Amino acid sequence: MRKEEEFNDWYNNIVEEAGLVDKRYPVKGMNVWLPYGWKAMRLIDALIRREMERTEHDEVCFPLLIPKTEFDKEAEHIAGFGAEVYWVTHAGNNELDVPLLLRPTSETAMYPMFSLWVRSHTDLPLKTFQLVNTFRYETKQTKAFIRMREIHFFEAHTCHVDFEDAERQIAEDLEIMKHFAKDLCIPYLLTKRPDWDKFAGAYYTVGLDTIMPTGRTLQLGSIHQYKTNFAVPYNITYENEGGEQVHAHQTTYGMSERLLGTVVGIHGDEKGIIFPPSIAPIQAVIVPILSKGNQEHVMEEARKLEEELKAEGIRVHLDDRDFRPGYKYNDWELRGVPLRLEIGMRDIEGGHVMAACRVQGKKILVKREGAGEQIKLIFQEQQEILWQKARSILEESIRTIEDYNQYEEGTIAKAGWCGEEECGHTIEDFTGAAILGTPVPEEETPEGTRCCVCGAHAPSWIYIAKTH
Amino acid sequence: MRKEEEFNDWYNNIVEEAGLVDKRYPVKGMNVWLPYGWKAMRLIDALIRREMERTEHDEVCFPLLIPKTEFDKEAEHIAGFGAEVYWVTHAGNNELDVPLLLRPTSETAMYPMFSLWVRSHTDLPLKTFQLVNTFRYETKQTKAFIRMREIHFFEAHTCHVDFEDAERQIAEDLEIMKHFAKDLCIPYLLTKRPDWDKFAGAYYTVGLDTIMPTGRTLQLGSIHQYKTNFAVPYNITYENEGGEQVHAHQTTYGMSERLLGTVVGIHGDEKGIIFPPSIAPIQAVIVPILSKGNQEHVMEEARKLEEELKAEGIRVHLDDRDFRPGYKYNDWELRGVPLRLEIGMRDIEGGHVMAACRVQGKKILVKREGAGEQIKLIFQEQQEILWQKARSILEESIRTIEDYNQYEEGTIAKAGWCGEEECGHTIEDFTGAAILGTPVPEEETPEGTRCCVCGAHAPSWIYIAKTH
Repeated sequence: MRKEEEFNDWYNNIVEEAGLVDKRYPVKGMNVWLPYGWKAMRLIDALIRREMERTEHDEVCFPLLIPKTEFDKEAEHIAGFGAEVYWVTHAGNNELDVPLLLRPTSETAMYPMFSLWVRSHTDLPLKTFQLVNTFRYETKQTKAFIRMREIHFFEAHTCHVDFEDAERQIAEDLEIMKHFAKDLCIPYLLTKRPDWDKFAGAYYTVGLDTIMPTGRTLQLGSIHQYKTNFAVPYNITYENEGGEQVHAHQTTYGMSERLLGTVVGIHGDEKGIIFPPSIAPIQAVIVPILSKGNQEHVMEEARKLEEELKAEGIRVHLDDRDFRPGYKYNDWELRGVPLRLEIGMRDIEGGHVMAACRVQGKKILVKREGAGEQIKLIFQEQQEILWQKARSILEESIRTIEDYNQYEEGTIAKAGWCGEEECGHTIEDFTGAAILGTPVPEEETPEGTRCCVCGAHAPSWIYIAKTH
Repeated sequence: MRKEEEFNDWYNNIVEEAGLVDKRYPVKGMNVWLPYGWKAMRLIDALIRREMERTEHDEVCFPLLIPKTEFDKEAEHIAGFGAEVYWVTHAGNNELDVPLLLRPTSETAMYPMFSLWVRSHTDLPLKTFQLVNTFRYETKQTKAFIRMREIHFFEAHTCHVDFEDAERQIAEDLEIMKHFAKDLCIPYLLTKRPDWDKFAGAYYTVGLDTIMPTGRTLQLGSIHQYKTNFAVPYNITYENEGGEQVHAHQTTYGMSERLLGTVVGIHGDEKGIIFPPSIAPIQAVIVPILSKGNQEHVMEEARKLEEELKAEGIRVHLDDRDFRPGYKYNDWELRGVPLRLEIGMRDIEGGHVMAACRVQGKKILVKREGAGEQIKLIFQEQQEILWQKARSILEESIRTIEDYNQYEEGTIAKAGWCGEEECGHTIEDFTGAAILGTPVPEEETPEGTRCCVCGAHAPSWIYIAKTH
């Protein structure tokens, strides 16, 4: 599935076939979340919330609409988003005095309020986040979860006393990502984006990229150090311990529904989706194997198993539809359910259930007694397998090259870089790939490392890849 | 607090003082949800989701933006909402070919898709819901949670084989409301709205109204029987068992963040908010009583108690701020925490904690051992007290009158009605109150009941009240 076109067809097809979204909504780039897909997204959100709670971020919810006057305050930000925003110009029969835009991201909605909230050093750090939809008028071809015009979005925004404390926040964000990505079994590469590709208004941007089966990288999210770049125009100041008014330092951390697209794209196979149990809307599906004369007894046992597993906190579903087992197997494999539990007379008599493991691709007998505990162990194993597999793919796709001519499509090249923007552009122009950035944490180059373009001394590495 | 102005001042003040919302966002009618308020709203949402899951509604999420072309399909609906919608006319630097509107409610977003989803009688009933924000360009004065331009909204949309099945859905909705309102301790009156006040496009509308301390009623939500009023223009048809294509019947059920406003308004007192434990963001706050020499020991015991209660599923918070206990008491009373647990040396030595009950207005000693269980019993008692108190207020505000001249402000009048629209308008014009509607379930009038306007035979009752 590494060939790009093949993957795209597979992906575009599977997101609908598996019932994640319906793409027939009559506005381009805006899909309908179907129950199964929305459940998966909400489970991802729940993992984010767990991490936010652990790190004492408060959940807020800001209005969608931002007055043009506030948006205009930060010049670089506008330049970055101006061409992508949706404008509300009328309400009812009136033309609005001040046009309102749909948030493409919430800096310009939040920071006028932060300016009111942050007064004293005792108000800091201020750590907030929200899970909302954002809007960007994408001109590129849209793709479910990956490139949408309405985007389900996570954004954390923080204020700090100084640059160092903001840096500590970024370190915390990286740790959050570590936990979180492990749960989704999604490996990623951390890079500091080159200056010409950082977020509009950021002092620096850390990109979180993974590799898709196309061999192209996909940005999963990003973390921004703003320094005082927004605090100055939005007047976010506090009284420090010495009694002076000084500007707060700020960071943000953003991710989106792309996380779900990545899970679909990275773990899936020719049979369909493979959900890690952590976010599988249905973790285990029970398929009763009925033959003449035993229907009721088997159904009763199946229901008992369902109740038992539910009570153990497993997201279980009993498929009692009037279809043949084979049809059901294909259906649930397509939809990526990690575990299928088959229960028939033989199983009941033998005191076991047959467990077909979607990830491992094998069937094992699970003892009926204490089935819940054994199933949880299988889930753990599945998490580990998916994680290791995805990690090897990412690791193996990284190739160190000495000259930018050696860049190969489908790989992530690691090369020496002198740090000159011009050499960066040469690489991008020549290869058609992008410079993801320099490694985070910083990684010293060995003595004698040369820039892959000009051959000058290369104090740092860069990663080069074709991106989605 | 029944005097209107006094209540309004109290309410407008408390929603900010208690940290539910910040009203200083620079767009009229759009507030910022602060962490405490958003948590309460999310707990209300969780209760809704529980009821939706129990009744097998599937959660979906539709796009915010609706093309004008879809919106225009249902003429009555437009007439009802036309003056209230926000229009997106531009995106980036382009004027859109088809203007998009921000959903004021989602009929016109969902039904074009329902038309694709509903094919056969086996697809029915289709039961979906979503929790999203909606937008209405209110011209009346806005008020936190009660009348906003961006509204946190619950909407269930269903399709059925026929009118009777849609009626069964409405019966289920009423049962859902019964559970749900009991949890919030919010009593309500059920009425079938008069024809001139039903929802745009509905065959009939059932209003769910409660009474606020102003003596005015507030609509909490509504349930609509659409018959085939939307199915016809949106072409929602299915093949029935006889092989014919027939139109589906539809219902909706909507509620909003008003639920939170009602909880604040109805249960609160001069000290502040009183949250029912069911949706209290913090159910119990622990205030350690420190005196010289015992600080560490008391804090340690307080932390132990916190851990223990947390493990029992209680939303508990340890207030370890460096303030005097009295300040903390006022603060948490203002914020409506149902239970304050004071723990000092005397309590530790006596093997108890002092529980100050916000609802009951009393203090009781709770044994330290098994504190969690006892606290849960206190919560149950609180739920019951709040429910009974609010219910009596609603019941006592209903007065049966014989002539519309007898209508008294601050009450809900129950009167005979001949059924003529003209008499209805006379009542409304003369009293300045609104006709809420006729009782649901229908209630026969005793022999000899006369219309409160024209004196003709009154086959039904109506409720009359001033509304928010």
